[in-house]
Amino acid sequence: MHKLASTKKPALDISGIYPPITTPFNDREQVDYAKLDENLQKYSSIPFRGIVVQGSNGEYTYLSKEERLEVVHRVRQKLPKEKILMAGSGCESTQATIEMSRQMAEAGAEAVLVVTPCYYRGRMTSAALVHHYTQVADSSPVPVILYSVPGNTALDLPLDAVVTLAEHPNIIGIKDSGGDITRMGLIIHKTQHLAFQVLSGSAGFLLPGYAIGAVGGVCALANILGTQLCELERLCVGGQWQEARKLQYRLIEPNAAVTRRFGIPGLKQAMEWFGYHGGNCRSPLLPLTEQEQKDLRKVFSSYGWL
Amino acid sequence: MHKLASTKKPALDISGIYPPITTPFNDREQVDYAKLDENLQKYSSIPFRGIVVQGSNGEYTYLSKEERLEVVHRVRQKLPKEKILMAGSGCESTQATIEMSRQMAEAGAEAVLVVTPCYYRGRMTSAALVHHYTQVADSSPVPVILYSVPGNTALDLPLDAVVTLAEHPNIIGIKDSGGDITRMGLIIHKTQHLAFQVLSGSAGFLLPGYAIGAVGGVCALANILGTQLCELERLCVGGQWQEARKLQYRLIEPNAAVTRRFGIPGLKQAMEWFGYHGGNCRSPLLPLTEQEQKDLRKVFSSYGWL
Amino acid sequence: MHKLASTKKPALDISGIYPPITTPFNDREQVDYAKLDENLQKYSSIPFRGIVVQGSNGEYTYLSKEERLEVVHRVRQKLPKEKILMAGSGCESTQATIEMSRQMAEAGAEAVLVVTPCYYRGRMTSAALVHHYTQVADSSPVPVILYSVPGNTALDLPLDAVVTLAEHPNIIGIKDSGGDITRMGLIIHKTQHLAFQVLSGSAGFLLPGYAIGAVGGVCALANILGTQLCELERLCVGGQWQEARKLQYRLIEPNAAVTRRFGIPGLKQAMEWFGYHGGNCRSPLLPLTEQEQKDLRKVFSSYGWL
Amino acid sequence: MHKLASTKKPALDISGIYPPITTPFNDREQVDYAKLDENLQKYSSIPFRGIVVQGSNGEYTYLSKEERLEVVHRVRQKLPKEKILMAGSGCESTQATIEMSRQMAEAGAEAVLVVTPCYYRGRMTSAALVHHYTQVADSSPVPVILYSVPGNTALDLPLDAVVTLAEHPNIIGIKDSGGDITRMGLIIHKTQHLAFQVLSGSAGFLLPGYAIGAVGGVCALANILGTQLCELERLCVGGQWQEARKLQYRLIEPNAAVTRRFGIPGLKQAMEWFGYHGGNCRSPLLPLTEQEQKDLRKVFSSYGWL
Repeated sequence: MHKLASTKKPALDISGIYPPITTPFNDREQVDYAKLDENLQKYSSIPFRGIVVQGSNGEYTYLSKEERLEVVHRVRQKLPKEKILMAGSGCESTQATIEMSRQMAEAGAEAVLVVTPCYYRGRMTSAALVHHYTQVADSSPVPVILYSVPGNTALDLPLDAVVTLAEHPNIIGIKDSGGDITRMGLIIHKTQHLAFQVLSGSAGFLLPGYAIGAVGGVCALANILGTQLCELERLCVGGQWQEARKLQYRLIEPNAAVTRRFGIPGLKQAMEWFGYHGGNCRSPLLPLTEQEQKDLRKVFSSYGWL
Repeated sequence: MHKLASTKKPALDISGIYPPITTPFNDREQVDYAKLDENLQKYSSIPFRGIVVQGSNGEYTYLSKEERLEVVHRVRQKLPKEKILMAGSGCESTQATIEMSRQMAEAGAEAVLVVTPCYYRGRMTSAALVHHYTQVADSSPVPVILYSVPGNTALDLPLDAVVTLAEHPNIIGIKDSGGDITRMGLIIHKTQHLAFQVLSGSAGFLLPGYAIGAVGGVCALANILGTQLCELERLCVGGQWQEARKLQYRLIEPNAAVTRRFGIPGLKQAMEWFGYHGGNCRSPLLPLTEQEQKDLRKVFSSYGWL
Repeated sequence: MHKLASTKKPALDISGIYPPITTPFNDREQVDYAKLDENLQKYSSIPFRGIVVQGSNGEYTYLSKEERLEVVHRVRQKLPKEKILMAGSGCESTQATIEMSRQMAEAGAEAVLVVTPCYYRGRMTSAALVHHYTQVADSSPVPVILYSVPGNTALDLPLDAVVTLAEHPNIIGIKDSGGDITRMGLIIHKTQHLAFQVLSGSAGFLLPGYAIGAVGGVCALANILGTQLCELERLCVGGQWQEARKLQYRLIEPNAAVTRRFGIPGLKQAMEWFGYHGGNCRSPLLPLTEQEQKDLRKVFSSYGWL
Repeated sequence: MHKLASTKKPALDISGIYPPITTPFNDREQVDYAKLDENLQKYSSIPFRGIVVQGSNGEYTYLSKEERLEVVHRVRQKLPKEKILMAGSGCESTQATIEMSRQMAEAGAEAVLVVTPCYYRGRMTSAALVHHYTQVADSSPVPVILYSVPGNTALDLPLDAVVTLAEHPNIIGIKDSGGDITRMGLIIHKTQHLAFQVLSGSAGFLLPGYAIGAVGGVCALANILGTQLCELERLCVGGQWQEARKLQYRLIEPNAAVTRRFGIPGLKQAMEWFGYHGGNCRSPLLPLTEQEQKDLRKVFSSYGWL
């Protein structure tokens, strides 16, 4: 079902489910590598295709360059060899993104996930973004995956830019978190002749994503309900849609709760309940209020997950 | 696949494909009933479940009350008995909507499609909309179908309002044109215990809609490529997803062209090419420029439809 | 200060303050003409330049065509001869707007205020809107005033369309409710050679409007604090900016409360407190909840108005 | 006119006009300090109140931490002693912003301008932002100025957060670039009892800003037409509104051209025409196309500035 329509073989087959892992901090807001290791240890029993380090949920914008690289380095050491480490290397400037991509590859990333630069969004035209990604892909030692996340960047990587960039031999796919399933269908259709792979950027539309031809997903919710998301993948890939639908339904609101509704503080809080190390975020992200915690818990319990 | 999960039987099974028909005008911008009849005649050979009269594509906001009723009356006379006539009866005020719904039922509509009132959108809270639809449904002689079309109303019927209204015995479904597949999944899940039916409001996400549990679609594109949309329905309902996907891909851009991109003037122009009566819209909708016509035609020809 | 820069004399000098009056209803939601008369009686002692009938606050979208005309007719009978009656004649279709404008002129309106048609906003291009307004102005027996109110229509009448339309001899001004003071300045600048008059569409930016060259305002708040708004006008026109500023500050939140925040139900509620007939709105507009009433009252009392 | 209504004296009087200077780069995209010096030299003859370094127009998101500090250091060396150096010290994380503010003070900044963190905008609630700014202001050796620029951040610093933060003894003002003049009026009113100073964040609404009580402006256009903006200040402060208006009108479109329309590449291009060093931006910001250059030039020439 989710096999590539294209006869071309991608440089790296990225089909599957990935948790975009969070970064655990200690009480002084320093990266807590021991806790990170323990989370990874727990994830190792789940049939993930790999791990995304420093997607939006990794609070990458709050990490220094050195921290970003160190985290990638540590994850690669702990991660089983057959699992893909996809590292978020996006920066606002092209030059910084190029350097970060190179260094992340050196630190062990199999692929880099490059978020759209967005601060000067009025000038982030298709031409500018194509130029940016082309330069990054030209020089990246590992394959590049585009990353469009309008919920954070307030910018959708334009469809025509995606289609143009899909031709680049070192750009192998996109993580699309916008949730516009029509757009996803069109991207898949227009890149069918290439070995371009589309990943759903959220658990909320994982089933529709598979139905329209996506090959996997990078889902915040996989930090908590990884086994279930891999099960949903299995059902979709195996064509068991009736069963898949039932499972998908139970994941929509929990997913919304740890993304749009309560953000990373919600995700980290829920991780604690599921046996992972979540903890606090770096400031200015505030921890949940007590009421928010109750509301969040209720979402998970009402669907039988807690 | 698209059977209702609920064991309850809806008052009216609306599963299937519907064209929201356009209103043909003559040179003096009067409704041309002869042309309308000819279009209906051509549609009669397509396995539609029914016809939507005065959805957004019917230019209902440009018709007088009398014209709205007369068109419904004429369509019901020409429409085969087994086909459902779903009539758009929405007005800005509750009272006018109540009256229009009653009169449309008298004119022969099997169900009314009620668009969200939207002019005072700042006060169109869930409470106000629940109150509005409840009053309409209480007094409507025929079942009510909710209609959320943010592209026109700049207002999404809130999820909680939909879920509350789904409990009403005379509200049997929703046409959701927003294209947010995650929201559609959630609506379906939260109304599963009821006989509430969800129709995709656009051909752009018909397959993902079926995949997540929708029972059909009201699609502007069905005015032109009705046979193909019914074929897509057949493939989805029959579980032939691989084939369905291929067909879906070829419909996304043509659909966008006659909706978001070129609107009703584009839809009517394309109808002419496909052997239907399209013609001009009422002012202020302008006909396509020559360049727009070329661009529109190119979309259909590039996908092999022309 | 607020004199027209142009040497051309407008067909009708509309400079000054106008309340866009509300429509009182009785318990059966019928127009209560006696109450309307009493409100007008009270307004007659305030130095308004005139009255706007069936602006957005008149709930015009909830009135039948007959009611719209009858209200205008009644207001004109009661209104002192020297006051301008500006009647909202906008409908979605051009033809209906043309007819309504003609009939409102017959019913006694000195000018018509024509809101942008908006339902098919994707096709309401500058070209379409210029065409619409030109046709309306060509046939209107009284001068036309453009009306851009994106808060309700989710559509801004584009600047270039305004500038083009300002050349029409029967289009004498615009009521701009969007609140973008930069845009207002540009409109005023680009129409300086014409006798085109700009009215601020809200009390929230009345002073900045005068400062940049507007000649008056149509303000919901004038239904309640009409004397104060006329005083603010006097201060601005007279160049007493220090005093004007103090008064303007005290009007911003009360204005927001009866517009963006609590809408027409809030405006009508507040009217009751100030000795006018407000009463309920037509459904689906709900009356304020008790809490909302309290919050609204607090706004007015905290600024010393109640 | 623009004197503070409050009797309290601010720690630093920031009233006046500031250019948010651009950062010149050489052909290898390195900071060109010689060119920077020359620009500063030219600015020294204009009666600016000071200079903003690393506002949005400084491409600060494309500079390394070291570059950001070095530029501030160099500007302070060259800037006449009596001029204020306001340095943009905003980072996404609170901790990084605290450090950057401290270092910028050490590098010579008289005040820091702190943009709203925005990447996780869904969680950037009033509470989170109040917490963020409070921590920064608590530890900053120099006064803090809030900076709300929704055009870049897609986030408005909420009014209630501004009002709360205005109470902090080390937060002395705000640069508001949103252009909502009603909001600006309300901020000024609600902080009148404090020594809180509001600066217009754009030349497009400088006059209305002064009219409503702002004390100055940080305007991209001041990089090019600094003398004229200082003249507009003089006219507004002196109460010569008629003259001020004429000048303001001529600045709106040139301002829009170097901000919203053509962005920093447009600003830098125009600087070249006016005798300053503009040059290229760092990638991904592309230089203007030839057509864009023509369009930009036309704007300035049509208003008599070129």
